[in-house]
Amino acid sequence: MNPLSTQAIAAGWDQDRVARLRAFLVGEHLDALIVPRWDNQHFEYVPPTNERLAYLTGFSGSWGLAVLTRKELLLFVDGRYQEQAHNQPNAAALSIHHLFENPPERWLAGAAKSGWRIGFDAEILSPDFYDRLESTCSQTGAVLVPLHRDPFHDSWTDRPEPPSGLAVVVTSQWAGQSFDSKCDHVAARIRDLGASHLLDVVPDNVAWLLNLRGSDLEYCPVVLGRLFIDTHGRVDLFADADQMAPAMSTLSHRVTLHEPRAFSKVLEERAQEARVLVLDGARSPQSARNIMEESGVRVVRRSNPITELKAIKNSAELVAMADAALRDSGVWVELLHWLEDRIGESDPRVTELEVEKQLERLRRRLPDYVHPSFRTISAADANAAYAHYAAPPDGGRTIGRKSVFLLDAGGQFRQGGTTDTTRTWCFTEPEHQVRRDATLALKGHIALARQVFPDGTLGHSLDALARMAAWDHYRDYDHGTGHGVGHFLSVHEFPQRLQKAATEAPLRKGMVITIEPGLYRDQEYGIRHEILYEIVAAEVPGWLAFRPLAFVPFNRLLIDLSLLNDAEMRWIDDYHGNVREQLATLELEANVWHWLVAHTQPLAMR
Amino acid sequence: MNPLSTQAIAAGWDQDRVARLRAFLVGEHLDALIVPRWDNQHFEYVPPTNERLAYLTGFSGSWGLAVLTRKELLLFVDGRYQEQAHNQPNAAALSIHHLFENPPERWLAGAAKSGWRIGFDAEILSPDFYDRLESTCSQTGAVLVPLHRDPFHDSWTDRPEPPSGLAVVVTSQWAGQSFDSKCDHVAARIRDLGASHLLDVVPDNVAWLLNLRGSDLEYCPVVLGRLFIDTHGRVDLFADADQMAPAMSTLSHRVTLHEPRAFSKVLEERAQEARVLVLDGARSPQSARNIMEESGVRVVRRSNPITELKAIKNSAELVAMADAALRDSGVWVELLHWLEDRIGESDPRVTELEVEKQLERLRRRLPDYVHPSFRTISAADANAAYAHYAAPPDGGRTIGRKSVFLLDAGGQFRQGGTTDTTRTWCFTEPEHQVRRDATLALKGHIALARQVFPDGTLGHSLDALARMAAWDHYRDYDHGTGHGVGHFLSVHEFPQRLQKAATEAPLRKGMVITIEPGLYRDQEYGIRHEILYEIVAAEVPGWLAFRPLAFVPFNRLLIDLSLLNDAEMRWIDDYHGNVREQLATLELEANVWHWLVAHTQPLAMR
Repeated sequence: MNPLSTQAIAAGWDQDRVARLRAFLVGEHLDALIVPRWDNQHFEYVPPTNERLAYLTGFSGSWGLAVLTRKELLLFVDGRYQEQAHNQPNAAALSIHHLFENPPERWLAGAAKSGWRIGFDAEILSPDFYDRLESTCSQTGAVLVPLHRDPFHDSWTDRPEPPSGLAVVVTSQWAGQSFDSKCDHVAARIRDLGASHLLDVVPDNVAWLLNLRGSDLEYCPVVLGRLFIDTHGRVDLFADADQMAPAMSTLSHRVTLHEPRAFSKVLEERAQEARVLVLDGARSPQSARNIMEESGVRVVRRSNPITELKAIKNSAELVAMADAALRDSGVWVELLHWLEDRIGESDPRVTELEVEKQLERLRRRLPDYVHPSFRTISAADANAAYAHYAAPPDGGRTIGRKSVFLLDAGGQFRQGGTTDTTRTWCFTEPEHQVRRDATLALKGHIALARQVFPDGTLGHSLDALARMAAWDHYRDYDHGTGHGVGHFLSVHEFPQRLQKAATEAPLRKGMVITIEPGLYRDQEYGIRHEILYEIVAAEVPGWLAFRPLAFVPFNRLLIDLSLLNDAEMRWIDDYHGNVREQLATLELEANVWHWLVAHTQPLAMR
Repeated sequence: MNPLSTQAIAAGWDQDRVARLRAFLVGEHLDALIVPRWDNQHFEYVPPTNERLAYLTGFSGSWGLAVLTRKELLLFVDGRYQEQAHNQPNAAALSIHHLFENPPERWLAGAAKSGWRIGFDAEILSPDFYDRLESTCSQTGAVLVPLHRDPFHDSWTDRPEPPSGLAVVVTSQWAGQSFDSKCDHVAARIRDLGASHLLDVVPDNVAWLLNLRGSDLEYCPVVLGRLFIDTHGRVDLFADADQMAPAMSTLSHRVTLHEPRAFSKVLEERAQEARVLVLDGARSPQSARNIMEESGVRVVRRSNPITELKAIKNSAELVAMADAALRDSGVWVELLHWLEDRIGESDPRVTELEVEKQLERLRRRLPDYVHPSFRTISAADANAAYAHYAAPPDGGRTIGRKSVFLLDAGGQFRQGGTTDTTRTWCFTEPEHQVRRDATLALKGHIALARQVFPDGTLGHSLDALARMAAWDHYRDYDHGTGHGVGHFLSVHEFPQRLQKAATEAPLRKGMVITIEPGLYRDQEYGIRHEILYEIVAAEVPGWLAFRPLAFVPFNRLLIDLSLLNDAEMRWIDDYHGNVREQLATLELEANVWHWLVAHTQPLAMR
């Protein structure tokens, strides 16, 4: 295990950590302390040095929040992580709650007494979350106390060092747009919004705007930094000077670099000249909002203009993303060929972890491959019914001839791509129910993927198209249908989403998004079919369509033809025709190519 | 024309009205005055006495807002009404703007000067709208000035009297629930929300809670009143004492009746004991929010619990609604039979208005019929391409043998029903394009109507199911797919909606909702197929389905069988089988019944 990994930090949990934090609590005259998993960059990923939640609670999941009081340690996690939290070794030392069904503010409403002092890091709590807590406190008479130093600073002795990777400047040609031009666009958007400034602390936005990449996070190639920008496109950047050194000659005509800890001080200065600040209420520091409002600056919460601009890829980005997805598809075909070969041996013993490692080996042959874009989900049979399963160090389940095997994996490619693909595979004819579930999920995928729709349609309008076929059989899946993907950036990019919950951002030409319906049977198996798509102009102006970027065959053994109509069969045959045509350019080995040809025959011929 | 109608008030417009209002403006030292169409009940319908917008601007549409300044009269209306506003006789006296694309707050941001005083009625503006205006004013230095008297009071000399209909108490048996039980439920919801009080000014909510009906509005059988309720289910009712007299013996153990104009005074008293007030931010008076916040009461804006409770019909309500919809379907069949008969004559000359009147005559034969639930849309050919067309007093277009005729109509039934149905009809084989459009809209209707879906699905998730077939041909319709309908109450009931825009309210068993996709060709024709549905439990627990409440045949001439798949044909045949089975109970005249039998034959046999 990587000594700096979240898992390692969580595994090292002991009661002393809690005792030391509680001493801090007492020393600061606090009654409770809020410790979220996210850090002051308000992002899905955090560097090991900021894995405060894992350190304090032993919980290694990707989202959650703790409340430490003088008597209790509460852990709030969502539905995905209830089982994991209850099964972790120190579960008895925790009081585990549901993050949405019994959120911290509701718990506080019952537990916090009048006069309670509740400490929080004002660079980590967002204005939206702060307001929810504040509203509870105003009812109970408790007080929220912003902290002036990191509560973990003194007590976390073996704390990992902060990341120190150097910023990598990408060219305008690679990015498809110069840093100057991006800043001008953002400045124009700030003006259009009637604002004077924009705050953005989210790492992939900062990387996109500044045309920088880095190596500060495990799955997302960014260099950490936060920024503040005005209507002239002048930028205050809060980041480590050593890390930013390689970039400053390119940036310095617009960018003033500040130490990260100068954040509040510089914002206080800027507040003197600011009039209206725009920020994302859910992904910004409460401290910034507070500083601005105390100086009479109006703070407008809305979706971040940089998030919106970044989501619409330019042609350089789209070409590179398509290229990476195609080359990654070649790796997938090699892997599936290898896997079928291994399973065909007389005594097949392939573990989930072995598949993950083989995929990594194959991907390493692509010269621009950097690392996975998320922890690979290599899951056989019952393991695939868990959301976000990760094969354990002992290898996990063995994949056998009768297994239903799900692989969800993506990579980061330096030439300019982030990928994300899922296939479900069988090696002999599966049970009827497996085949039916897989075909229903595939019908859902097709229904959405083939649909043309009006420009600007909202993602929540399209989500159900991928569920109808499953609904007809009283089945559904408990996750979104698709998420945005970045250009050598985050694999979960905002704002584009296909999901049940309301989405604010209209779908536009140039966005890149996954379609990934699934069906799951607890204790049995999981099915998911995921392809990365570019949103393109349809034949008629004002209409959009999905164009696949990844080309990996679907497993014929999992398709029940009796459930498909002609249009669906045609879609599968067309897609498989495209798989062959696209992958023909990759010069795969002859045996891999023959395997591919066999797996992409028209359905009627198989 | 009814001398009290909106149309009559609008038609009587002259420049003097504007001049007199402007004199008020000057007298109050105002620079602008905000005049919305809605009144202090924040409802879709207003009594003639409050048709301030029609009086001031001559605009007779159902939604809009005026801003009167010392120099200009601005009218803001949405896309539906742009053409009507630009064509009205006094259009030259107005500056017409788009209510959403260039809303009043944006116009003010450009036009209002520092120091401007902008008058508004604080019982008519909602907190949400007030905040949008206030945010503009804080940028421009303008000031919002709440008015202490109705600006129209002195100058509107021939103003219609306020409505004076008596409250009608409905029995617990009829309503399916006693007034006391409803109040207890609402009180429990207020407690669940952590609040101490709820304000509700919306007429159909007030009518539902108090088990009252009335005759104060043209299309919705309510008696006007506003209410304030606490966690013990004690109610302050602001309504006319004479109107409420018949109800007070039933209500007085819980209800304290106040004069409407005592609203602010009583709220100020209640603010002393209140802690947290819940209100609907978009459908409540800013005055109430202001009074409460000034007394330190926290005001929580959320969807109204009464709106939510009312939407889930109990079995008494559902039985009555189904019964009314069935009997209304019988009237529809009589009407369509009559219409085909008339068109079959040697020289058919049936006007749109004549159809509307014939429908009214036929409905009057149902003893509990009260009045239409909205102004009937009887629209031939190009007229049907307008949203909310109403046949003019001269009769409108003549329906001929080659017409494509759209009829959208509903009624209010005292036994407990509100109906809303649309059919599109032809009398000879129409052009290919008409038939294709009609079939695509019908495919959309079927796709949604036959879909089972998880309990709690949001309306925005289902909307696109009714559009897919049209989208496949790059066509769409610019209105929602469905709306809630009340129990002898509003034909546009909240919160249930099927629409593109985000919906907050989950769909639940017991809701009643329309499905009504359409397709429109400007200058040519309009198609719409609307049926009222009850949301029922599906075969499997946790799943819901649509059950039709109205039974009127679809026109066979408008169905292109080559565009339908087997499941769609089966759905139509099943529905037509139901039409026959259900209407068999109504004892229609023999010639009507024969007509019905012919029009409900299985598709394959026709």
